[in-house]
Amino acid sequence: MSKDKEKSFRPKPRIPRGLRDLFARDLFTRTRMLATIRDVYELYGFEPLETPALEYADALGKFLPDVDRPAGGVFSLQDDDEQWLALRYDLTAPLARLVAERFEDLPKPFRRYQSGPVWRNEKPGPGRFREFYQFDADTVGTPSMAAEAELCAVLCDSFEALGIARGDYVVRINNRKLLTALLETLGMNGESKADNARRLIILRAIDKLDRLGEAGVAALLGAGRRDESGDFTKGAELKPAQIKAVIDFLTGEAVSGASLRKNIEKQLGESPTGQAGLAELEEISALLGAAGFGEDRIVFDPGVVRGLDYYTGPVIEAQLTFDTINENGDTVRFGSVAGGGRYDGLVSRFKGIEIPATGVSIGVDRLAAALNVMGRDMGETQLAPVVVLVLDQNRLSDYQAMAFELRRAGIRAELYLGGAGMRAQLKYADKRRAPIAVIEGEDERAQGAVTLKDLRLGSVMAAQIEDNATWREGQPAQMSVPRAKLVAAVRDMLARAAGKPGKDVS
Amino acid sequence: MSKDKEKSFRPKPRIPRGLRDLFARDLFTRTRMLATIRDVYELYGFEPLETPALEYADALGKFLPDVDRPAGGVFSLQDDDEQWLALRYDLTAPLARLVAERFEDLPKPFRRYQSGPVWRNEKPGPGRFREFYQFDADTVGTPSMAAEAELCAVLCDSFEALGIARGDYVVRINNRKLLTALLETLGMNGESKADNARRLIILRAIDKLDRLGEAGVAALLGAGRRDESGDFTKGAELKPAQIKAVIDFLTGEAVSGASLRKNIEKQLGESPTGQAGLAELEEISALLGAAGFGEDRIVFDPGVVRGLDYYTGPVIEAQLTFDTINENGDTVRFGSVAGGGRYDGLVSRFKGIEIPATGVSIGVDRLAAALNVMGRDMGETQLAPVVVLVLDQNRLSDYQAMAFELRRAGIRAELYLGGAGMRAQLKYADKRRAPIAVIEGEDERAQGAVTLKDLRLGSVMAAQIEDNATWREGQPAQMSVPRAKLVAAVRDMLARAAGKPGKDVS
Repeated sequence: MSKDKEKSFRPKPRIPRGLRDLFARDLFTRTRMLATIRDVYELYGFEPLETPALEYADALGKFLPDVDRPAGGVFSLQDDDEQWLALRYDLTAPLARLVAERFEDLPKPFRRYQSGPVWRNEKPGPGRFREFYQFDADTVGTPSMAAEAELCAVLCDSFEALGIARGDYVVRINNRKLLTALLETLGMNGESKADNARRLIILRAIDKLDRLGEAGVAALLGAGRRDESGDFTKGAELKPAQIKAVIDFLTGEAVSGASLRKNIEKQLGESPTGQAGLAELEEISALLGAAGFGEDRIVFDPGVVRGLDYYTGPVIEAQLTFDTINENGDTVRFGSVAGGGRYDGLVSRFKGIEIPATGVSIGVDRLAAALNVMGRDMGETQLAPVVVLVLDQNRLSDYQAMAFELRRAGIRAELYLGGAGMRAQLKYADKRRAPIAVIEGEDERAQGAVTLKDLRLGSVMAAQIEDNATWREGQPAQMSVPRAKLVAAVRDMLARAAGKPGKDVS
Repeated sequence: MSKDKEKSFRPKPRIPRGLRDLFARDLFTRTRMLATIRDVYELYGFEPLETPALEYADALGKFLPDVDRPAGGVFSLQDDDEQWLALRYDLTAPLARLVAERFEDLPKPFRRYQSGPVWRNEKPGPGRFREFYQFDADTVGTPSMAAEAELCAVLCDSFEALGIARGDYVVRINNRKLLTALLETLGMNGESKADNARRLIILRAIDKLDRLGEAGVAALLGAGRRDESGDFTKGAELKPAQIKAVIDFLTGEAVSGASLRKNIEKQLGESPTGQAGLAELEEISALLGAAGFGEDRIVFDPGVVRGLDYYTGPVIEAQLTFDTINENGDTVRFGSVAGGGRYDGLVSRFKGIEIPATGVSIGVDRLAAALNVMGRDMGETQLAPVVVLVLDQNRLSDYQAMAFELRRAGIRAELYLGGAGMRAQLKYADKRRAPIAVIEGEDERAQGAVTLKDLRLGSVMAAQIEDNATWREGQPAQMSVPRAKLVAAVRDMLARAAGKPGKDVS
């Protein structure tokens, strides 16, 4: 390329596929949500940790949740010393690296939370991004089931702190040991390669009970299943009696306490693995019960698998259970918003010794989306500032003074910084979703007054169309107030918009 | 590699060089600091934005601040469609991409803040990391100097909200147009390649006034300078009279208002570029004066350059002005903690049209370090939970109940989850910097009591060694309280540790 061509080269401004820009409306909910969850986790004694985005690729290893795509999935690049670096694909693998690297220095057990973006080099799709946010909490270094009980409890407390009512969420818990015992009853001890492959097919089938129902799972456990698009997924080729055993295990009366043991034992017999899994679940259940977390919040569910192959004990999945209507008018159930479990082997790849660990990860984007649909997001409007119009550039500092008066009273306020006329400025204020425009033209100035224009009235009135006329009389869309009472009048108008009583200051 | 060898391969757990793990003590200050700055910026009407970590490399361009290393400096990798992606090296280049891509949709002016990590593929050194945090605010789409005035003001308000006293920080402001006019008086119009190279050497020399003093800068403006290590830096080879002119410009009485104009004009004559630069500074000064931001906070400084070549107008640099003693006993001045300026040409590389823009960036890590040294960080101790010891695994749920009681009262509390004995548990609590250990052994239980051990007394006593004995009498290191009064007693002990009066509940 010649120098001239180089100079005139204009790159196309574009965001890489599968990535996105987040604006005020998206970030308002997320920022407040993360702060709330953080406070709850700190109340439980979890301490914050932040590992870097880049790790050595060999230290990260490959523990991607999607067993269908075990290879790839990671963004990697070569450092100038030729070592391969990779962007973290979750927050667990870096924790394992940290624990292995600093084992001696850490308090044991080590309990940390971490939130931040993770990256997956995958084919993006609707709602499937290549950068997304997680909020993880893990306890490393204890085999105690009290750690799992606490993870279930901290999830419940977090949801309720976020305003999700009891009954609108459920934490489901299972134990991989029960699933292993189930596979043993089917004659699979997981020691041969063929067994292992089949084991994965079966676990994946079980994981799909929610989505495919009994018949779909049964097909996947048998010869295979053809989906609506005509694609065929090969099955595990279990015999009919084996398929029935799995389905019975999944759909049998799943209740806690004495009946839980009875029901499970009916399926799994006296398998030592099954017994161990049962004892762990019973211990968790007893601890949670003693702490007041009953089955209205935390339930046993034999169908919880969680995708990751590294889980070795209890597995946890939290779901939102209510239906909502999204902006397209469709009924949506958000389903799983958090999950995790015990992974006693993750650090051993570095150290050769097992360090017990257990943790949960909240899918921040999905939970934020749910909160938005629940109407808890007021992002754009909550953050939007009062806009002070500038109708005379020579009096910029007078207008600026109004903005500062409002700010000093704790009211978000912005001085219009463009060069446009009044109409365009009001349009700008609308685009910012500003609640109020402050207007001081020549007339107002001569009278020592300012005009406040209530920019949210339009939409409120549309929503309350029935008694529109009456309402409008009592709620003027704009009012003139003495300049000296600017702050009080704005505060009053904001309170009125928020539905709080305010007194007239005009 | 054979299958066996592969299985036994143990990667070394290590963090890539130039990257770091941040723990509670680091994150406590940063998290609270970012929340405080965010609130101040929102008060000014800046709205949050988050762009992804990865951008197309050609869309980012190369605007790295360090003119010495224009090539490299970026972590890049090839996407599977063969396009090159790069990790953002600042938050300004992604903003330019976003503005160019979404120009029609954005409110204009567009005012956003963004905080997050950026990455530089550079040689790491002490205090120089390859991933670090920035907090940026920019106003895009207005040539108004009110935007600059606001950036200066929002920096001042942010510092004071963080507890940095007026007088302990200063915002210095200059105008690149003055520097351009100065170069013109030296006969450099910046149109030839040789001129451009020399211009950079001169600006870089000016930028070093703080560090090298007049003599050092004079050497760099002349033949060159040999530093203490013996390295020689070639100079700009200005003539003695030219060097004097530059030094006079930098060290002449820099005062605002009428004298500022007189002083600058003495140096720059009637240069139109200089006049334009002066007029802009005067407008900013007038606006800030009207808003109550005087020269105790914001001053003109002709030596402010800012490294980045893309600045076209006012440039801003905020500094902390107090000396502190670091943990090694050395006197430290933190110096520059934020900087920015007007960059009217950054979007034009996409669009071919100029979109005026101005912004500032806070160096989050450096400011957090300063706040830590100022003693505003209480990270480890503030976040550390009360630790409830577990002296009988069979009574885990009773101990757990204590932790939950404390949490429900808003007190951070942790149930010890390991398997060690009492002595090791107390050591663990110390390592966590826990303020209090809650102990209920057999004896206590029989009496319906719990023992609270004040774990911070040791260090407090060491600091107040003089009247240790007297003090100790009134402040028992441990006390027995009725089990039913656990929460009140813990709250009381915490209040006492924080220096607040508390009443005896034993």
